[in-house]
Amino acid sequence: MKQGRSARIHLPLGFCFSSAVAGIKASGRPDSALVEAAAGATAAALFTKNRVVAAPVEVGRKFLARSRGRVRALIVNSGNANCATGAAGLRHCLRVCSQASRLLRARTEEVFPSSTGIIGVPLPVEKIIARLPDLIANQARTEASVLDFAQAIITTDTRPKLASARFHARRRTVNLLGIAKGSGMIHPQLATMLVFLFTDIAAKPAELKRVLRDVSKETFNCISVDGDTSTNDTVLLMASGASGVSLRETDVQTSFRKVLREICRSLSEQIVSDGEGVKHVVRLRVEQARTRDEAVQVARTIAHSLLVKTALAGADPNWGRILAAVGRSGLLVDPHRISIYFGGQLVCQRGQGHAFNSQHVHTEMSKPKYEIRIQLGQGHAACSYLTTDLTAEYVRINAEYST
Amino acid sequence: MKQGRSARIHLPLGFCFSSAVAGIKASGRPDSALVEAAAGATAAALFTKNRVVAAPVEVGRKFLARSRGRVRALIVNSGNANCATGAAGLRHCLRVCSQASRLLRARTEEVFPSSTGIIGVPLPVEKIIARLPDLIANQARTEASVLDFAQAIITTDTRPKLASARFHARRRTVNLLGIAKGSGMIHPQLATMLVFLFTDIAAKPAELKRVLRDVSKETFNCISVDGDTSTNDTVLLMASGASGVSLRETDVQTSFRKVLREICRSLSEQIVSDGEGVKHVVRLRVEQARTRDEAVQVARTIAHSLLVKTALAGADPNWGRILAAVGRSGLLVDPHRISIYFGGQLVCQRGQGHAFNSQHVHTEMSKPKYEIRIQLGQGHAACSYLTTDLTAEYVRINAEYST
Repeated sequence: MKQGRSARIHLPLGFCFSSAVAGIKASGRPDSALVEAAAGATAAALFTKNRVVAAPVEVGRKFLARSRGRVRALIVNSGNANCATGAAGLRHCLRVCSQASRLLRARTEEVFPSSTGIIGVPLPVEKIIARLPDLIANQARTEASVLDFAQAIITTDTRPKLASARFHARRRTVNLLGIAKGSGMIHPQLATMLVFLFTDIAAKPAELKRVLRDVSKETFNCISVDGDTSTNDTVLLMASGASGVSLRETDVQTSFRKVLREICRSLSEQIVSDGEGVKHVVRLRVEQARTRDEAVQVARTIAHSLLVKTALAGADPNWGRILAAVGRSGLLVDPHRISIYFGGQLVCQRGQGHAFNSQHVHTEMSKPKYEIRIQLGQGHAACSYLTTDLTAEYVRINAEYST
Repeated sequence: MKQGRSARIHLPLGFCFSSAVAGIKASGRPDSALVEAAAGATAAALFTKNRVVAAPVEVGRKFLARSRGRVRALIVNSGNANCATGAAGLRHCLRVCSQASRLLRARTEEVFPSSTGIIGVPLPVEKIIARLPDLIANQARTEASVLDFAQAIITTDTRPKLASARFHARRRTVNLLGIAKGSGMIHPQLATMLVFLFTDIAAKPAELKRVLRDVSKETFNCISVDGDTSTNDTVLLMASGASGVSLRETDVQTSFRKVLREICRSLSEQIVSDGEGVKHVVRLRVEQARTRDEAVQVARTIAHSLLVKTALAGADPNWGRILAAVGRSGLLVDPHRISIYFGGQLVCQRGQGHAFNSQHVHTEMSKPKYEIRIQLGQGHAACSYLTTDLTAEYVRINAEYST
């Protein structure tokens, strides 16, 4: 698998990329982007669970249903989330889609919209529409155009986020490319994780949806920085079919799932690592749970605990805070069965402190990335969950911003 | 009502207080305390909902059941939580109670234990037992002894927390006194909110329990600093009966509830205001909910949001973060019905931004205490919920501590 901006990209067939400066961002950086897919491309998407959703989420969900999973183009803008913008926000979003579809000679519902940026400010719709002809004219199937696309969709991210991979099946090659946006922390009025996944496999929308849901459950749904859910979160998977390989075959599906999971896992890590003020990324490994869902419930409670997150910032092996978080997770746990490891080091055995070399543990916890293992002593299910520390810098960044 | 350490105290009849230095705290400050109640005193208690509970919580719960709500003495130590200490922790707790009961000529199950402080370290039981004779000999019914008691039960609190009040019924006087410990934030391995309430009313344990549960629901269960639940949280209400007034009469009960609510509300505010690094205490007022429970669910989600708490630290009227928190509260809300006020100032009307004087709002949000009102547009239920900002100082304090 290739990841990060410097690696070469496995570019799926059947997609062209472009980006432009529409003048939405005050910085004058690229803030609008387009992907056009070959005719017949299919798609599936997952959206934020927040009840307050941005206009593009409402429109995108409706269009996907109406087109029965056919998507010819993706139009993204950064710098404005088009959220809490009322009926005007919906009209603006529809205008962008209908204008783009006219220029692309596609149906309106085959244009998938996506926005990220400030909440509660009207979308500068004319600026976007004015750039559509250029966005369409300048499309390319090059690494440079993909990197520019990745750059155009970010907001306060410090770096673009990409991962790609390929596998071979039926003597052909299937390519997968993922591009993400999100800096782990949800930002001052700048929210959102956006993930766009492209592949040249041939698949029905329902097949894509199933794979996407399963893989997201283990990747994007197992990361946490500040526990807040954005109003715009979107994960979109588009399949052009241009590889000539079909997802229907069992062995192909196994390979595809595996590679898609790798890509989503990489993008998850890139998002979490890029969180504001993040000094440590910690993989919580919850083991010996009765079910995977229960393991996730425990992991999520630990991942969201302010006390745990501040202890991680101080590289402090404060297992009492983790034990207390497990205790309030809502699960029926027996504290006398719980053991906790920092790195490979046992620090709490069956609910009581276990003597450990604090220098060793402190060194381990000073690494930018390490693992904490929690054994519940109840069963055989497990999960991995990525979390971060909470630093004074995060608070400073998020508090000092003023509207 | 009297509150704070400087005000005069309405001292309930039938209770004597004492405190001592047992040498548990490294600082050499008072760390053990005793209250003896008149024979026949009744009691009710509420405990932490955490599944991981300290030994004194386990013992206190069992003793209250066994004695059918009779409590003759309360023995508290600070500096050690006696939590995650296994079977030895339970034995230590029982030894303290049995030794105290022998000296007091009471039954063991009539001695209620309580501990707060570091987790996972064996309780220095001999040090406490060595001080029991002095604690019993030095009991007094004076303001000074009450203030010393309040001082002896705190850990990292910056000040002791007291509130007292009285009311008249049947030409007699009923006194209520509350003493609390807890600095809002749960501390580095120093956890816990402890609240001890004393009154000279005459009441059955079941009556006390009912009133205590109702009042706590509106006070101690409606505050949040960091969302973590301690392993030792305890609220104990003791009634000596010495006033000669019975809780059974309807009018007495009304007065008693009202005064108890005032005291618990005051102690709640004192706890939240004393949180580490807290610069702003904010009263979240959620209105127009279908039910009070739904209002609390929304308030709790806002109160725990890192994004909201950091915005409060920066005195930033970032209503988009509050709207997003309402959206992920789990409630079926319609964003287009939600309005938000900072102080008296409307900032979001029916889901969209409303022009406001940002200087006015910033001034309001710079106060140490103010109100944010959220109207859901769904019904007529409401709740108040106290939360705090999250400052870089909090993170520094909680991160820089190292075991």
